[in-house]
Amino acid sequence: MKIAIAQLNPTIGDLIGNSQLILDVAEQAVNQQATLMITPELSLIGYPPRDLLVYPGFIEAVQRQLAKLASLLPAELAVLVGTVMPNPDAGSKGEKPLFNSAALLQNGLVQKTFHKRLLPTYDVFDEDRYFAPGKTSDYFMIANTFPVKIGVTICEDIWNDEKFWQKRSYDCNPIEDLVNQQVDLIVNLSASPYRIKKQRLREDMLSHIVNRYHIPIVYVNQIGGNDDLIFDGSSVAFNHQGDVVFRADSFQADLKIFNFDETKCDLISREENTPTDLANVAGTEDAEIWSALVLGVKDYVRKCGFRQVVLGLSGGIDSALVAAIASFAIGAENVLGVLMPSPYSSEHSVTDSLALAENLGIKTEIIPIGDLMNNYDQALANIFANTSFGIAEENIQSRIRGNLLMAIANKYGHLLLSTGNKSEMAVGYCTLYGDMNGGLAVIADVPKMRVYSLCEWLNHQSNRQMIPTNILTKPPSAELKPGQVDQDSLPEYAILDDILARFIEQSESPAQIIASGHDQKIVERVIKLVMQAEFKRRQAPPGLKISDRAFGTGWRMPIAKSGFQEVLIRENK
Amino acid sequence: MKIAIAQLNPTIGDLIGNSQLILDVAEQAVNQQATLMITPELSLIGYPPRDLLVYPGFIEAVQRQLAKLASLLPAELAVLVGTVMPNPDAGSKGEKPLFNSAALLQNGLVQKTFHKRLLPTYDVFDEDRYFAPGKTSDYFMIANTFPVKIGVTICEDIWNDEKFWQKRSYDCNPIEDLVNQQVDLIVNLSASPYRIKKQRLREDMLSHIVNRYHIPIVYVNQIGGNDDLIFDGSSVAFNHQGDVVFRADSFQADLKIFNFDETKCDLISREENTPTDLANVAGTEDAEIWSALVLGVKDYVRKCGFRQVVLGLSGGIDSALVAAIASFAIGAENVLGVLMPSPYSSEHSVTDSLALAENLGIKTEIIPIGDLMNNYDQALANIFANTSFGIAEENIQSRIRGNLLMAIANKYGHLLLSTGNKSEMAVGYCTLYGDMNGGLAVIADVPKMRVYSLCEWLNHQSNRQMIPTNILTKPPSAELKPGQVDQDSLPEYAILDDILARFIEQSESPAQIIASGHDQKIVERVIKLVMQAEFKRRQAPPGLKISDRAFGTGWRMPIAKSGFQEVLIRENK
Repeated sequence: MKIAIAQLNPTIGDLIGNSQLILDVAEQAVNQQATLMITPELSLIGYPPRDLLVYPGFIEAVQRQLAKLASLLPAELAVLVGTVMPNPDAGSKGEKPLFNSAALLQNGLVQKTFHKRLLPTYDVFDEDRYFAPGKTSDYFMIANTFPVKIGVTICEDIWNDEKFWQKRSYDCNPIEDLVNQQVDLIVNLSASPYRIKKQRLREDMLSHIVNRYHIPIVYVNQIGGNDDLIFDGSSVAFNHQGDVVFRADSFQADLKIFNFDETKCDLISREENTPTDLANVAGTEDAEIWSALVLGVKDYVRKCGFRQVVLGLSGGIDSALVAAIASFAIGAENVLGVLMPSPYSSEHSVTDSLALAENLGIKTEIIPIGDLMNNYDQALANIFANTSFGIAEENIQSRIRGNLLMAIANKYGHLLLSTGNKSEMAVGYCTLYGDMNGGLAVIADVPKMRVYSLCEWLNHQSNRQMIPTNILTKPPSAELKPGQVDQDSLPEYAILDDILARFIEQSESPAQIIASGHDQKIVERVIKLVMQAEFKRRQAPPGLKISDRAFGTGWRMPIAKSGFQEVLIRENK
Repeated sequence: MKIAIAQLNPTIGDLIGNSQLILDVAEQAVNQQATLMITPELSLIGYPPRDLLVYPGFIEAVQRQLAKLASLLPAELAVLVGTVMPNPDAGSKGEKPLFNSAALLQNGLVQKTFHKRLLPTYDVFDEDRYFAPGKTSDYFMIANTFPVKIGVTICEDIWNDEKFWQKRSYDCNPIEDLVNQQVDLIVNLSASPYRIKKQRLREDMLSHIVNRYHIPIVYVNQIGGNDDLIFDGSSVAFNHQGDVVFRADSFQADLKIFNFDETKCDLISREENTPTDLANVAGTEDAEIWSALVLGVKDYVRKCGFRQVVLGLSGGIDSALVAAIASFAIGAENVLGVLMPSPYSSEHSVTDSLALAENLGIKTEIIPIGDLMNNYDQALANIFANTSFGIAEENIQSRIRGNLLMAIANKYGHLLLSTGNKSEMAVGYCTLYGDMNGGLAVIADVPKMRVYSLCEWLNHQSNRQMIPTNILTKPPSAELKPGQVDQDSLPEYAILDDILARFIEQSESPAQIIASGHDQKIVERVIKLVMQAEFKRRQAPPGLKISDRAFGTGWRMPIAKSGFQEVLIRENK
């Protein structure tokens, strides 16, 4: 029996477009003699649909579209489609109104539905907001030569293995429930967002399950960028011995067809050369982050209906990296870099930016902002009389640039990309309504040290100084006053990034961070800065998530608060 | 037996400050011979603490502070304090690590804890993200003349009455569980945010419960503003006959002492004049919204560590209302209004603003922006060559103003208030990085028609034209090009606001909205605008919530999506 896995890239809410994606791959699957096709979690709707699910009218439209899709699919192909289903127990028994479901479409009808049982409600996930948990795990049968019992799980349902996910273990185990029903194969429809080394974690976890229960598993993940989340695909299948029999592409849509041998009750690889060990195929962390960010930009631009982007080029490494990512994502011809030198800008800020633009092949414009600065000074002369140059004046420069960039974006219908990195966003070393302007914050989850390594990786990869050496080697500076460098205000980035990773991603307390070897005063100052900068981050554009914990939908911190940093700093003292 | 209810205004995360609030009222309660004092939900931490709860170091600090508070409270007073408690079943049985609890402090120790069972996870609430539900409902005994069994519930635990809250009914009923244990009194620790007519809803619901079970109920609500949420207090108690025996103040901290007659097992009012019917005490909707917004501004300013605010005065009604609210919230002497006329501004934009400022007694500054506009035109002359005046140029003006306001805010440490109303925010009739600038969006949940009625209410209340007549009567205009008025681009506000309320607050489908009598083309256009403006709202400051559904933490809509509006529009066609 041939089974197809359709690693799709749906657009949130686009029921008709997503149906067409499913119909297109279904045709290919049938042409390759597949009997069954599996699509990702919520493939009809796109994941995460968030508060679209609050609209009863939307849910009704999903039901109609699901029925229509069933009627349009090739009758001979059984297809598992990710969708939502109404919960008949909603209201009367006090449950949420929906299930997160897999619907088995065959012979023109919805034959059976399976409901997700383990609902993630942490980090970026809010499934308890919308869904009731399914009560049982179930399977369906496909009879070809022999009947095969195929157990269905959805995403989190398999993330319950005590070896790999103790912290979020649940009080039911869908895998064991399926094992007890003696299924021959377990399939999983997923929408599992990318983060660094996530593929390794997934495969280790799946392999542990297979080695424990000796049942083959097919894992089908969504790909594509949806706002801040990037789905890497990387769908994978294990035979009953725990060997990987195929991997789908990472960071692009894919259709894989494989054989399930009904006599052996096992998967047979169609690709003889798929290595069992991921280490033999995976690239470096830099390579995977690069691919993730390129996909994130590409899909955000496309799904928001843009074709071109604009960004400010400062001569610094952050804007250089974003320009490079954008060029690879949507083509250099669709990227406009704007240079806006001030009297405080170094000469190399322009020359380095032009060298970068030439290397990438992007267009540039130069708009000096000295006159505008003078004009603001005049406009504010009375109000600012007898005050000295400070943060207010620094921010004006950044906001002039932000205004010019938005003017160009508005005039030509470009999407403005913001270029701040995670280290800056964390400590608030960025100007609200200035350099934070943009529809997408491309590297907002990339710490400064990683910005460097990504640029070095890119240069190594492209076999030339795509990012000019001078941009890589000069000391980082906002150039908002004469001679300014970042390290006037911030600890060395290597130190800062380690403190930030411990505090933000690992939720360590200051005492723990200090115990790891960091200077107490620096730790206290950094955490205070992080807490104080919340008001800026609240108004930041969506940032592409690549880490365990990004600012944005998975970081929900009050603004008006006091004492938090003090409480954390005092702890264990 | 005398019981005190402490309607407190905690600051999120400020464990030491919040403890002090509790100690202060405890002293007063003891002075008035109280035996028991009840505080609101999470009174030690402030509600909602959100992702502070993700930090184990913070949870440990809460536990230490709770023990310390117990040791500092008067030994003879039993105090119910809202706090979080570690869940011993976390991890091993797969539950969340915390309970949302009430701790009974007495004789220097934590004597007993009670855990919230019904966890709201909808709208602005995310409790399933942090908390495990308590498994049982329980009571404690206070012996004075006779032992009294006091059942403890926390906020949502009482929102399970099928008459009033069928949609979110749960599969357990804490009230019935307490009734079955024959408690003499039910207390509820709440942090229930304000919205229009919420007090009426709460009292109807409580009275229905009392009339059903004939057990007196004491309801203790938090007051104060915490970011977007305003807690109105309005604590209330019902005797076993269902009569209100007292109401605490709305929108301010309060301590109420009342008698519980142990022989009659009932509450006795200390205030003989408390009317049973809320209609006899409640003000108009405008009066309560006004009080809510004043409190929201006051607390956001204070809890963020500001003392003064700045805002742009356009001569329009929105900025007039915000200036008035701010003046009442923090004193007119702490409010600076900035007038920034352009060549497109009407003459009355300045005269009306100055008249308003004089009425309110606030300071003003005037900064004409014509030169800056010219300067931007020059800077962009090459890039904008052969294009005509449009949205880009309109936005430049708004962003010049936004930049000037932020410069003043930065220079003098003022908080910038943004002045956009809900109607504008809904359809995107506002400029990102321009008039949307600010730390707090004061009227972002107030529809335009309500802006008018609040201003009229204020004038009536103050017995003079506090908001000058001309501001109330002139046609709304952004004044970004000659002769522009809002109704060039938008439907009449009365129509727009009704469509928006149906779509945003009631989640009606376009078909339903059209069926209610609205023009199909207008409905379709409005919904399209709402969906398209999501990228702007994502970067908006927190807005004070006064409605069933505000943009912000309770509205989670994807940006990169397509087809949603089309799907909704097509439905039922």
